[in-house]
Formats: sequence, structure tokens, C-alpha cells
Amino acid sequence: MKPLAISMGCPAGIGPEIIIKYFTESHSPSQYPAIVAGDIQVLQYYAAKIGKECTLLPWKTGTPVPGDNKTIAVYETSHLSRESIRPGIYSSETSCAMVAAITNSVQGIQNGLFSGICTCPISKEALQLSGYHYPGHTEMLADLTGSTEQVMMMAGKTLKVTLATIHCALKDVPGLLSEPSLCKLFAKTWKSLQIDFNITHPRIAIAALNPHAGEGGMFGNEEKRIIIPAILKTQKMGYHIQGPYPPDTVFIKAAAGEFDAVICMYHDQGLIPFKLLHFKDGVNVTIGLNIVRTSVDHGTAYDIAGKNIARPDSLIAAVQMAHTINVNRNIAGNQAN
Amino acid sequence: MKPLAISMGCPAGIGPEIIIKYFTESHSPSQYPAIVAGDIQVLQYYAAKIGKECTLLPWKTGTPVPGDNKTIAVYETSHLSRESIRPGIYSSETSCAMVAAITNSVQGIQNGLFSGICTCPISKEALQLSGYHYPGHTEMLADLTGSTEQVMMMAGKTLKVTLATIHCALKDVPGLLSEPSLCKLFAKTWKSLQIDFNITHPRIAIAALNPHAGEGGMFGNEEKRIIIPAILKTQKMGYHIQGPYPPDTVFIKAAAGEFDAVICMYHDQGLIPFKLLHFKDGVNVTIGLNIVRTSVDHGTAYDIAGKNIARPDSLIAAVQMAHTINVNRNIAGNQAN
Repeated sequence: MKPLAISMGCPAGIGPEIIIKYFTESHSPSQYPAIVAGDIQVLQYYAAKIGKECTLLPWKTGTPVPGDNKTIAVYETSHLSRESIRPGIYSSETSCAMVAAITNSVQGIQNGLFSGICTCPISKEALQLSGYHYPGHTEMLADLTGSTEQVMMMAGKTLKVTLATIHCALKDVPGLLSEPSLCKLFAKTWKSLQIDFNITHPRIAIAALNPHAGEGGMFGNEEKRIIIPAILKTQKMGYHIQGPYPPDTVFIKAAAGEFDAVICMYHDQGLIPFKLLHFKDGVNVTIGLNIVRTSVDHGTAYDIAGKNIARPDSLIAAVQMAHTINVNRNIAGNQAN
Repeated sequence: MKPLAISMGCPAGIGPEIIIKYFTESHSPSQYPAIVAGDIQVLQYYAAKIGKECTLLPWKTGTPVPGDNKTIAVYETSHLSRESIRPGIYSSETSCAMVAAITNSVQGIQNGLFSGICTCPISKEALQLSGYHYPGHTEMLADLTGSTEQVMMMAGKTLKVTLATIHCALKDVPGLLSEPSLCKLFAKTWKSLQIDFNITHPRIAIAALNPHAGEGGMFGNEEKRIIIPAILKTQKMGYHIQGPYPPDTVFIKAAAGEFDAVICMYHDQGLIPFKLLHFKDGVNVTIGLNIVRTSVDHGTAYDIAGKNIARPDSLIAAVQMAHTINVNRNIAGNQAN
């Protein structure tokens, strides 16, 4: 099995620290082979700071992945000076190192070295400092892999959600919904559940936009005008999706196992229930890319970097999910051939 | 202690059935003295239908409340014929009986017979049939008690929420928010936590309208324009409220005990997390009335009425909360005198 690349994230954030904790506390080398794409100096710094003993070993292409929890193989993508590594304080130097870990991981996947990438957090501000002007991680990865079909899925064992709109004002949400874009999203979510999560007959609920699903048009007409036509069209294409459901009860049904995923109309509609159910172990999966990519479900947390507070729970879940998706994609690929 | 009046709700809904189950399965007569305001025929019908043995006793003003779980005291507010009682099917006759239970309960409270009212579900359609044209239960009770200050609170042990807007299209929410109405809501919620819930120093979180609380104006400006000024003004009046918080994490903080209540900007923002946390035992409390009123957190469920499926969990919680509020209001009243 090819190893997964875990990109270190911003050297001033909690990424390197949770990586050290993941490998020394929770890693199952035989089950989830993984290497870190990043900077040995940075990892050494945080390992010492939080008092974790481990050996950081430069990883050379094609060599085996260490089989124990004390040795961490590092695919070296930068060589920062000791002085430039400061918890909570990023610079153009650390930001370039942060980006190099990502670009080299993607190249490694494309060259057949890695099975996929699990990303530790970066910040938008640091990304700008590096000279790359993407709005975020996901857009950068889409560009590096030549994709325009990427969709963010928040995934946990109890609930999976995808979003029709993400980072916009609530007042702009109704105007951003359209039948064609919803149809695309419904189909992509369905395909991802089939291929990435190996669910033969996915059961997907579509959340309404308005309270009580619009109460027959009394509280808004986007259900009638946009969402229901999109559901009917997608159903005709052979995807078994259902809805629109009143938003205040659909997540209870999903959490009870009635649905494999809920497609949400706006950020907080999906993120409020998702974070309530998966605050510690939520995973951000980018579906629709031609590479496997998962991410921790939290930010750089500059305020607590290096303070031995951050927990690796989300990284553990993200690594496991990347492996699961990788295995499932291989099964689907073999079935297709 | 004066008894609480439990109004039977629509005779075609699950109200009478959950009342029978509440009294025979879960009632603590000494702790929570209660009588049913409604129709003995209706209650007898459902008791027989679900096979529960109990004695339904007409309750006369001033007589003691039965001290066991087999005897249910009924304050008779209607006398429906056996033929008119049909699960799932309401008529103008049953709707008038439904309304009589409510109006007589309120009158009973005003005449000093009852400590408050706990309402079982009615439907808007049945309410119209009775000749009363209120949009719902709460508006009717406000009118009967001469109040214009009523606010719906969804209350549970883990989370309490109040809402700045309720039944409207999502696209109308931003336009319905105003600084004066938010200030009023913040103050009312604060006072209710003090008086009704006996919390000396309430800790209240205000949820933002937009994702990430607007991310400094990038995703909407209602926080800057309306919500933050309302918070500052209310704080100056001496109410310790905080926010606005990003909606996707504020409920985690509240559920962890950091806040006593979260004030939400729209229906699903509050109801999605509330129902996830309190699907079975959520209570709808009308704060700002001069009578104590709680309600079950579900509808008439006409489709399952009389089928022995409905559970009394929400009624149990609503009765207990009415008693708690009553006790707390008495304490507050005594302290004020």
C-alpha cells in the first residue's frame, strides 16, 4: 500500500504539533501507512516543545515507511532555519514552506508516490504571504490537479453534509441557488457516496431552504421554484435523492441512520448540526477531485500553537477517512475495469 | 400548591393520548399536582383505545387533586358526543372543544384556581374551524391575557434558545432584524432566565446572522449594522449578553455549559441544534406572559393519533418546567415584596 502524505500545514499553527501527537500516540503504521510532507526542523521544534520523543527520518522515494510509532518519515519539502520557527507567528518564509508541503505532496501523488493527501491547517493570510492568491486550500488543490468539480463535504460517522453555498452573506444565499448547480451538487454527492464511501444505494436527503420546507409557499418559494425541480430532474437521471425536508428535523433522521448524507443550502444549516455531532472527529473531504484529499476540520489555532493543548482527534479521523476513500476508489476502479 | 392545568389539545390529535400516558406512567401527584382541562368523553375514548386503565373524575373547584396515578381529575370544559371523537379527523365541534379547554384554563388561572397552563397540541386548521382566527396557540394566549410581550423560548436542560424571527422565508430574515426589536428580545430573554429559571447572573450568547459572524464584513454586514449595536446598547442597560458568535460553534459552547441561552436570528438557526439536542424532551415556553405557560414541543400528529405510538416525554418535561417556572416566579415575587 502506498503511503498517505500528511502535509504539515502552517509552521506557526497547530499542524506540526498534532502530527507529532498523531504519530506518537495514535498511529497504526501497518493499517494506515503515512509520511509527513514538510520540514524536519519544524517537526523537531514542536516535538521538543511538547516533550514527545521521536525520530524524524528523511524519507526517500521508494523506501519503506517506518513500522513503529517512534519513527516519523518526513518527505522533506523545505528547510527552514531554527529562527524562523515561532508558534503563532508566520512569515513569507514559513508560508512558502507551508505551500511547498502541499505542492510537493500533490506532485508526489501524481508521480505515484502517495495514495492521497491529508492536509493540516493553513491560514488564508499566510497563503497570501506565500505569493499564492487562492481563497483557500481547496481552490489551490483544485488548480494543482486541474479540477473544476471540487465540492466540500463535511464527513463523520453519524452525519455527512455537502453545501450548495458556502462563504457568503445569508441574504445572498437564495439568489445563489439555481436548478443546474443544485443538480450538479446532488449528482456529485451521490457519486461520492457510491465511490468514495462504497454505499451501493446512497440515501440522500435534501434540506429545504426555508423553515417547515416553506410550508406550502407561505414561508418562501425557493422550494417550489428551484429545489423541487432540481430534485425531480436529478431523480430522473437515476439518482435516488429525497426532499426537500424541513431543516429542523432532517438531521435527526440522518443521525438516526435514515440518510447517508444531507445536502444543505447554506453554510450554517450544515455546519451547525455537523459540528454539534462531530466537533472532535469531523473531517473535511474534497470530493470531485481526481486525487484523494481529506483535511482536519479546524484552523491553524495560532493562539494555542506549541502550547501542548491541541488534540489530534480530527487528524486521526482524517487520515483514516483518506485511507478508506482510497481503498473504496480502488475497489470501484477494479469493478469498472 | 395549586394544580397546573393541562389543556387536552385537539381531540383528533395525540394530546389526549399522551395525557393518559403521562398520568398513568409518569405522574408524580405530590410533586407536580395537575388536572386536565378538557373532555372526559375524549379522554375515556383514548384510554380505552390504548388499553390504559384509569378513573376519570370530574374536578370541582377547590376540591383536592387525586394523589394516585390511576385517577385523573378533569376540569370539564366540553361534552363531546362519542360519535364526534375520531382520531385524525377534526370538526368544528371538536375544534370548539379544543378552544374551550384553553380559554377555561386561562380563566381558571386568572381566578386563582391553577398555577399555570401546559398546553397539548392544537392545529392551525382546527383553530380556524373553531371561529378563532389566531395564527397559533401563543398569539391566542397573549390575547387572552392582554399581553403584547410574548416570546417563544425552546427550553431543555442542555440548551435554551429564543428567536429574533420565526415563521418567515429565509430571504426575509435580514430585513426583519432591527436594533430596537433585538434589544427588547435580549432583555426579555435575560429577565426570563433570572425570574423563570432562577439564574442570578444569566450568561447569554447572541448568535450572528452570517457564517463566521460575517468574517469582518466579508460575508454580510448585519452584525456591524444591527446586531453589535443592539448588543452594546443592551449591555449598557446592565444585561450581560455576549456576541455575536459564529453560529456553527456557539451551540457547542452552550451545550458544554458556557452559556445559559443562545439568542438566534432565525427559526432553523435555533431549531436545528435545539431539536438535535432535545428531540424527545424539548419544551416550548412562552416567556413574557403574566401567566405561566409551557407547551409540548410537537404537533397534533394526526397520522398516529390513537395508535398507541405517541410518547409523553415532551409532556413530562413541559409539566415539570411549568412547575419549576411557577416556583421560581413565586420566589422572585417574594424577594421583590
